[in-house]
Amino acid sequence: MDTEEFRRHGHAVIDWLADYHAQIRSLPVQAASEPGSVKALLPDSPPLQGESFEAILGDMDKVVLPHLSHWQHPRFFGFFPSNSLRAGILGDLMSSGLGVLGLSWQSSPAVTEVEEVVVDWFRQMVGLSPQWFGVINDTASSSTLVALLTARERSTDYSLARAGLQDGGQRLVVYTSVSAHSSVMKAALLCGFGRENVRLIDVDEAFAMRADALEQAIAADLAAGLKPCAIVAAVGGTATTSVDPVDEIAAIAQKHGIWLHVDAAMAGSAMILPEYRWMWNGIEGADSVVINAHKWLGVPFDCSLFFVRDEPHLLRVMSTNPTYLQSETDGVVRNLRDTGIPLGRRFRALKLWFVIREQGVDGLQARLRRDLKLAAELSEEVSRTPHWHVVAPVVLQTVCVRFEPPGIPGEALDEFTRAWASAVNKSGEAFVTPATAGGKWMVRVSIGAPETTDEDVKSLWSLMQSVSADVASTFQTNQAGA
Amino acid sequence: MDTEEFRRHGHAVIDWLADYHAQIRSLPVQAASEPGSVKALLPDSPPLQGESFEAILGDMDKVVLPHLSHWQHPRFFGFFPSNSLRAGILGDLMSSGLGVLGLSWQSSPAVTEVEEVVVDWFRQMVGLSPQWFGVINDTASSSTLVALLTARERSTDYSLARAGLQDGGQRLVVYTSVSAHSSVMKAALLCGFGRENVRLIDVDEAFAMRADALEQAIAADLAAGLKPCAIVAAVGGTATTSVDPVDEIAAIAQKHGIWLHVDAAMAGSAMILPEYRWMWNGIEGADSVVINAHKWLGVPFDCSLFFVRDEPHLLRVMSTNPTYLQSETDGVVRNLRDTGIPLGRRFRALKLWFVIREQGVDGLQARLRRDLKLAAELSEEVSRTPHWHVVAPVVLQTVCVRFEPPGIPGEALDEFTRAWASAVNKSGEAFVTPATAGGKWMVRVSIGAPETTDEDVKSLWSLMQSVSADVASTFQTNQAGA
Repeated sequence: MDTEEFRRHGHAVIDWLADYHAQIRSLPVQAASEPGSVKALLPDSPPLQGESFEAILGDMDKVVLPHLSHWQHPRFFGFFPSNSLRAGILGDLMSSGLGVLGLSWQSSPAVTEVEEVVVDWFRQMVGLSPQWFGVINDTASSSTLVALLTARERSTDYSLARAGLQDGGQRLVVYTSVSAHSSVMKAALLCGFGRENVRLIDVDEAFAMRADALEQAIAADLAAGLKPCAIVAAVGGTATTSVDPVDEIAAIAQKHGIWLHVDAAMAGSAMILPEYRWMWNGIEGADSVVINAHKWLGVPFDCSLFFVRDEPHLLRVMSTNPTYLQSETDGVVRNLRDTGIPLGRRFRALKLWFVIREQGVDGLQARLRRDLKLAAELSEEVSRTPHWHVVAPVVLQTVCVRFEPPGIPGEALDEFTRAWASAVNKSGEAFVTPATAGGKWMVRVSIGAPETTDEDVKSLWSLMQSVSADVASTFQTNQAGA
Repeated sequence: MDTEEFRRHGHAVIDWLADYHAQIRSLPVQAASEPGSVKALLPDSPPLQGESFEAILGDMDKVVLPHLSHWQHPRFFGFFPSNSLRAGILGDLMSSGLGVLGLSWQSSPAVTEVEEVVVDWFRQMVGLSPQWFGVINDTASSSTLVALLTARERSTDYSLARAGLQDGGQRLVVYTSVSAHSSVMKAALLCGFGRENVRLIDVDEAFAMRADALEQAIAADLAAGLKPCAIVAAVGGTATTSVDPVDEIAAIAQKHGIWLHVDAAMAGSAMILPEYRWMWNGIEGADSVVINAHKWLGVPFDCSLFFVRDEPHLLRVMSTNPTYLQSETDGVVRNLRDTGIPLGRRFRALKLWFVIREQGVDGLQARLRRDLKLAAELSEEVSRTPHWHVVAPVVLQTVCVRFEPPGIPGEALDEFTRAWASAVNKSGEAFVTPATAGGKWMVRVSIGAPETTDEDVKSLWSLMQSVSADVASTFQTNQAGA
């Protein structure tokens, strides 16, 4: 493919994507695919001879499109908003097209410096003080892993330079809540702490970590000769957007010299709204924070912002300096490779830069407020409908609901909940995510696709009512017959 | 930005990139930027109001372009070829534009199944048996970290489910060579093994790991009551593309039940050439392998292929299964989130699929053979020139050279080497990477940008000779005056 062919095919891909977004409302939100249906359409072996680009693009329609669940669909209410704003798509295209890598500052200076500036813009937008240093990682899973690694090394005074966790020293303990995202436990296990040394602290009725229970757990571990190492608190927990009390937790962390990492992966975007900053009161007492701009803020995946207060410590834990990466500007500039797990870095800052500039802070705020309003309205509707319950405080744009119609015994309600959620998804009309909170299954409605409207949320609510009524009748009959 | 604006601006970005690639020869390969020069061009704070896309695109010319080192430039001979073929750029654009995530198979089935098929194509292309299971990670750093994590957990019978590395059991030891990539040590430290438990095995005159020295180190550790856990061998070591004897190392690994990870990050692409398969003789005795398709194969960064033989073990170490990620197809399909560190997955397989199809295996092979021929020719030229030395076997497309002109004392040659490499880079005419091999500084010429020609390599060779002669005269004068 030469330059002119790239121009022609590139226009065709842009047109394909423009058409995709224009017609997305007409597509079923969830793919109706059977396992193996895509594989069956593909050859078992790679082609020996090159194929025309037209043939490849044609297979996007034949092989790929029918087997996508559409995260950008206005009636996608699953998981979390991963809303790829169009300016961000074009920023990411720039990154792919330039093909430059930030192995070091000198390997392409703009890669580092645009990231430094735009991440600092972001810091200002979410109201963090200038004491924080930030970088872009791929995902919150990686950011949280880096947070726990830096915590581990602070607690052990850089054991990695000695025998690591194999030195038989005091056992380190990590604290998080039962509501924490799965990536927290995963990161703790990958760090080598071991499941026995991870405490899942109890939550209150709003699914937030109980600071008193945390304090007790720490006291018990100290009494047992263990060493509290890190606390991971959530601002906007995954299932229900619960809010751990950061200020109280930070006070405990500081008292005991424990690293505090705040997982604000989804909710961090809301911190660009001054009226929501209460959610992380006390954040300046934390040691690290993760916010995914690829979630609700609208930057195409992947773009996870990781902030730490102690930059030199981060660098000491994560840096490498082989001769083939040394350059004349070392010591004068930042080499962002020394902040994360991968060595190579894409020019990810471009998509963040493009989105912030094209939207402006005002534009981003307006879109978040739209979603917050839609969620509040849905929550009210659900609350005032008989047998429907909003099972967790609606803090942000996620509404957690449960339908408990008469005639279905309590022990069948979990199965019923999953059944009607599945029926909603199978309809292709909307997509929601079932999950548990407090041990009970409920359905999460997460609002925030780029073009979701008031009408879309109303349609969803009608759909949920009609589908669940249908499913309920089966359950009621089954129960009657049982 | 609505659909039609996206179409218009998207065409403009494609045109910008087409023009960029068309004019790339006229740009200095290395940016002449001073530290801070990009930052100085950017506002300190984010814009409150949105800006026009034209303004943003205009800043690509004003702010970004002058401060890039151009990895796709035909005279970029630095680090490694990270050659973004145009079909791959468009595949990556598709991924950004669709904005679908592979949290689970069901969250967008094509994301998983296209990856399964295309990674299996790749497996066939590089001649691995069907015993291998492969996935796409971001970088070799991450793949190697996962390899050492899986090794750690095999050696400890899943200590992560207990006290992790804090159980005070037998100390685990990791082996690699002094030529290993920096990511190996980094991964070992992040895993918690500790530097004291990493052995850097001696190399032979071709910079390859000495199997006899490995065997001795293992014997010594066993005698001391330690537990050998993992060996990381390199096929195509970073500095000189050295080749560790995989067959001998695999035999040792199997004898002692040690996990063998093979780092073929750069050289793995050459395994699509049957005549180069000798390089990893014995590979079927390894436990895991990493090959970066974003290096020499031409897929835009990031696209690192990680293969393991024991898929269930990988899943057991890396999996998470919270309720909000469970779906009805669990157990029937693969959830690729359970194979790596991040939870979310971009549709990275698209760019690999696009490149393999557009080029065909024949096309990819032809391009690699072009680079191999150019490297062999340059190596011959250098070898027959007085005072110039090729300091490592030219196994692939990397030529490591050192110029030792008369009049410069031995102890000044390292400084001289770095000085002339820097002068080459500052000329803007070509870009090379200085590095050490066997403790001496040399200059790596890594051939493989998409449009590098015979003439480009000849120009580089002339440039190296003239620039180094100029720099030599300064050194000779300095020495004379000293």
